[in-house]
Amino acid sequence: MAIENKAPGKDISEEDLKTKFPLVAKKSADHSSCFSVAGVEFGGDLIPVMAGPNMVESEQLIVETAQAVKARGAHFLRGGAFKPLSFPYRSEKYTETREQGIAWLKTAKQETGIPIITEVMEERYIDLIADVADILQIGTRNMQNYPLLTAVAKTGKPIMLKRHYGASLRDWLGAAEYVLVEGNEKVILCERGVSVAHTHRSSSRFLLDLQVIPAAKEVTHLPVVSDPSHATFWRPWVEPMALASIAAGADAIMLEVHPDPENSAVDPLQAINFEAFKALMASMNKVAQAVDRRVK
Amino acid sequence: MAIENKAPGKDISEEDLKTKFPLVAKKSADHSSCFSVAGVEFGGDLIPVMAGPNMVESEQLIVETAQAVKARGAHFLRGGAFKPLSFPYRSEKYTETREQGIAWLKTAKQETGIPIITEVMEERYIDLIADVADILQIGTRNMQNYPLLTAVAKTGKPIMLKRHYGASLRDWLGAAEYVLVEGNEKVILCERGVSVAHTHRSSSRFLLDLQVIPAAKEVTHLPVVSDPSHATFWRPWVEPMALASIAAGADAIMLEVHPDPENSAVDPLQAINFEAFKALMASMNKVAQAVDRRVK
Amino acid sequence: MAIENKAPGKDISEEDLKTKFPLVAKKSADHSSCFSVAGVEFGGDLIPVMAGPNMVESEQLIVETAQAVKARGAHFLRGGAFKPLSFPYRSEKYTETREQGIAWLKTAKQETGIPIITEVMEERYIDLIADVADILQIGTRNMQNYPLLTAVAKTGKPIMLKRHYGASLRDWLGAAEYVLVEGNEKVILCERGVSVAHTHRSSSRFLLDLQVIPAAKEVTHLPVVSDPSHATFWRPWVEPMALASIAAGADAIMLEVHPDPENSAVDPLQAINFEAFKALMASMNKVAQAVDRRVK
Amino acid sequence: MAIENKAPGKDISEEDLKTKFPLVAKKSADHSSCFSVAGVEFGGDLIPVMAGPNMVESEQLIVETAQAVKARGAHFLRGGAFKPLSFPYRSEKYTETREQGIAWLKTAKQETGIPIITEVMEERYIDLIADVADILQIGTRNMQNYPLLTAVAKTGKPIMLKRHYGASLRDWLGAAEYVLVEGNEKVILCERGVSVAHTHRSSSRFLLDLQVIPAAKEVTHLPVVSDPSHATFWRPWVEPMALASIAAGADAIMLEVHPDPENSAVDPLQAINFEAFKALMASMNKVAQAVDRRVK
Repeated sequence: MAIENKAPGKDISEEDLKTKFPLVAKKSADHSSCFSVAGVEFGGDLIPVMAGPNMVESEQLIVETAQAVKARGAHFLRGGAFKPLSFPYRSEKYTETREQGIAWLKTAKQETGIPIITEVMEERYIDLIADVADILQIGTRNMQNYPLLTAVAKTGKPIMLKRHYGASLRDWLGAAEYVLVEGNEKVILCERGVSVAHTHRSSSRFLLDLQVIPAAKEVTHLPVVSDPSHATFWRPWVEPMALASIAAGADAIMLEVHPDPENSAVDPLQAINFEAFKALMASMNKVAQAVDRRVK
Repeated sequence: MAIENKAPGKDISEEDLKTKFPLVAKKSADHSSCFSVAGVEFGGDLIPVMAGPNMVESEQLIVETAQAVKARGAHFLRGGAFKPLSFPYRSEKYTETREQGIAWLKTAKQETGIPIITEVMEERYIDLIADVADILQIGTRNMQNYPLLTAVAKTGKPIMLKRHYGASLRDWLGAAEYVLVEGNEKVILCERGVSVAHTHRSSSRFLLDLQVIPAAKEVTHLPVVSDPSHATFWRPWVEPMALASIAAGADAIMLEVHPDPENSAVDPLQAINFEAFKALMASMNKVAQAVDRRVK
Repeated sequence: MAIENKAPGKDISEEDLKTKFPLVAKKSADHSSCFSVAGVEFGGDLIPVMAGPNMVESEQLIVETAQAVKARGAHFLRGGAFKPLSFPYRSEKYTETREQGIAWLKTAKQETGIPIITEVMEERYIDLIADVADILQIGTRNMQNYPLLTAVAKTGKPIMLKRHYGASLRDWLGAAEYVLVEGNEKVILCERGVSVAHTHRSSSRFLLDLQVIPAAKEVTHLPVVSDPSHATFWRPWVEPMALASIAAGADAIMLEVHPDPENSAVDPLQAINFEAFKALMASMNKVAQAVDRRVK
Repeated sequence: MAIENKAPGKDISEEDLKTKFPLVAKKSADHSSCFSVAGVEFGGDLIPVMAGPNMVESEQLIVETAQAVKARGAHFLRGGAFKPLSFPYRSEKYTETREQGIAWLKTAKQETGIPIITEVMEERYIDLIADVADILQIGTRNMQNYPLLTAVAKTGKPIMLKRHYGASLRDWLGAAEYVLVEGNEKVILCERGVSVAHTHRSSSRFLLDLQVIPAAKEVTHLPVVSDPSHATFWRPWVEPMALASIAAGADAIMLEVHPDPENSAVDPLQAINFEAFKALMASMNKVAQAVDRRVK
């Protein structure tokens, strides 16, 4: 009659860590991964910043943004080329730039030297994307697409694994283990907002889960990135949530930065412009220093 | 200062239906798809029942179950052969049977004549699976794996699209549109439980969202299946939620049935045995008749 | 390093049932409360129906509705007189009728003989309300207002305890125990929708949690009511969810019925008119019979 | 056929701010309330810290804690005397101390001079509690207990209104408006964790919603407090979430501090000891300074 636990719940036990997540699990209380990507260290004192537009809209846009964010201290340029909408049609303003976008990212990298992070959605484009990207991003929709995880892992490239907006910490770590089991240890976890009952604005679909940062760090040695732009979906909340992410222990910050946010091809409510990015870098650095870290 | 809606929220407008989900959208208030799969009609008076084990554990298990569920009125045999765990290791009891499992499903089909539904997780196995399966299932983890959706759509086979446990109706319909846009109109939506704050047992990770059935039917002509076994994760709740699904308007029911549930290789708390399945078929038929439908 | 359970989670153990919810807990697998209110039995074969407007707007409205719902088979008249909005001002159409509304309920009862259920929000009005009400309703906002629960319990009147939209089963049962410990055993639990990430319409704020019905009945002997009107907030979904409630095992149904729903003073999207109520009574009875119960 | 918005959703419009939340609403973009309580300013540069045990267990405990937290920089002593469990029985260790507890709080105040915040759950104890308390706390369970809100408002005392764990920002502001409409403008909002699908530990029932801080400040001038102890329910997460709260813009911090946390009468997993509190005050001050504020 009573409710007994005969099946695993949402928790992660010591036994689980040993048998299900052995590579993701911390080996000791102070075990924390630290690795270098394109000369930028993840998991150390530095909190790398990945900045750029949601979408690689044009060559001019991405080169201009690469220059601007690099000049203002960003460590990586972010931008999506393969980025389908949640329905199979183009919107009025929005068209995936795909192979063309990847080529433009390459130009941006050549002209500025800034390393690149961009998303892989399909096995067939891994080589094309890995040729320019320094970090391969797995998006929320593919968090549990294990064949894709296995395939990107095999490139040996660093992988940033976005948490699904409905996923538990347990499921997220299990997905990361699929990458590590292939011998690829450069995995970065990325929190980007979860679906909840109340998001405070109908245009904000997610709530940034900062509690998952200490929760993840309790069990895994992998660095954890926070993406306040996508999570909040609302420009005025990006700064406070970026600062809060750093104070909560985030190891890197991903931000949407666009030369003209209101005319962004997608998600015009969340990107910040170059000037706001500059100010945010300064305020992030102050909070980082308060927790004995730095963004510069 | 006030919160204004400049971006789309979670709603689906008339305009969205025309521009983003035109093929999934109802053309008129009484528009409802009706199509036949292996001689079984979906979307009509009949509420087809898909029954079988979570996993195709062995040839004997799947043939025995095929015979038993067919004899008790099931219209389809369900069973997973490609079914990775949420971490990349085998559990003590659990091993994917993959190609071997598909071959066993083929044997079960040949010996009993029951049509098959089984999951496709990777493009490379589509042909292998489509050779035996009458319906290709897309699982919750792949709901927004659009390349996979496009690839399975092109087989022309009926597709059952499971809703992600964190997905909105909008995202689910968008994923279905990716199948229909390829010219494949035989799409069946499947509700299998959503993640919520309170699930009443720690072993029950999901809540069956029956409200999504009338909500979906308000905007789409596609049939909607309910999977109370996976949603409840708890045997005693399967019957009430199966009956409730039918009363709420479900067009088909998916159930986990196993000759020896407590010794099932996976999810031993949720499958029902042959006897319970027989009783449930009878009680489901009574409720179906009360809403002018039938399961037999 | 690992996550260990040192504190109670959301589950309800055998030990909890004995020490925290001893009066609410079932004494045996088939223990189920059955009691009579104003000659109507709760917890037996009959599924009583409580119907009426959200608010007791006027004497004419409530008397007319009392006559209409009684004639169509309702067992109780529902209607709120004390019913503040979620901000302290009157809306254009909406004014609480308070003492006046209670007097009108009394008139409706005298003229038709139908028993009454109405909400108590404050200790000081208990006597006034208990004078006319056959069942005292505790609303979602007061589910854990223990002093109020204690005070209504002491009247000896049957109590219907609405689940808070964010409450766990555990918290709900704990609140019920506060009533039973006062010696009042006539407690009816009422599920009225929970807050979730996705509700399918922005106007629908809740999701009817039907899984809580078998979950509650697994541990408690108390009858469980379902309120599909308030939960769905959308007229077209009321019928399917009312039928699903009965199939899921609900012991009573609460419905919003109004002579002119679109001009209802509050929540005009969810009430059904007299004709729809009549049809729903017929369809509910068919489903009830399919599960060996009845609404008439 | 399509889903149209005829009813208010979860958003707060300009119109809502004018008609439903006029007193709570900001009058201009930089409108922010600033008021003094017992000589401590809320809403200014200072971020007051409220520290103490969950429960006023004994005179010795509360006096010792008052001395210790005051010496380490706390601005208010917190502690509950009226604090029922979620079921109507005492646990082995836990007994409400009620009137006795209030008397002990008075002793603590007299001996140390530290101002007091404690919870009011019932109108009949308002005078008793208001005699010692400098701030009256309304707990999560009573957030929408409007008669109680009205009664505490009339004392003229500052009110701290905890958000219900399932409440929207809209409902929370509406509750605050019930206090302001009585002429009491000293209202402090307190975020203490919301119920979500995934909390990372079964013992952690809530997720601290830091996104609500900028969301609230966008529409209201009221100060917002964060309570990371209760939200996380887990000692190791208190520090990162306290720091994140400050970085997100919290105007005050509430913390559970206990001389011997593991032997706390209630919630032994979340309180921190005096030494940890001292260290946290230092780290909070560093983060506060990074955002141009201070805790000292």
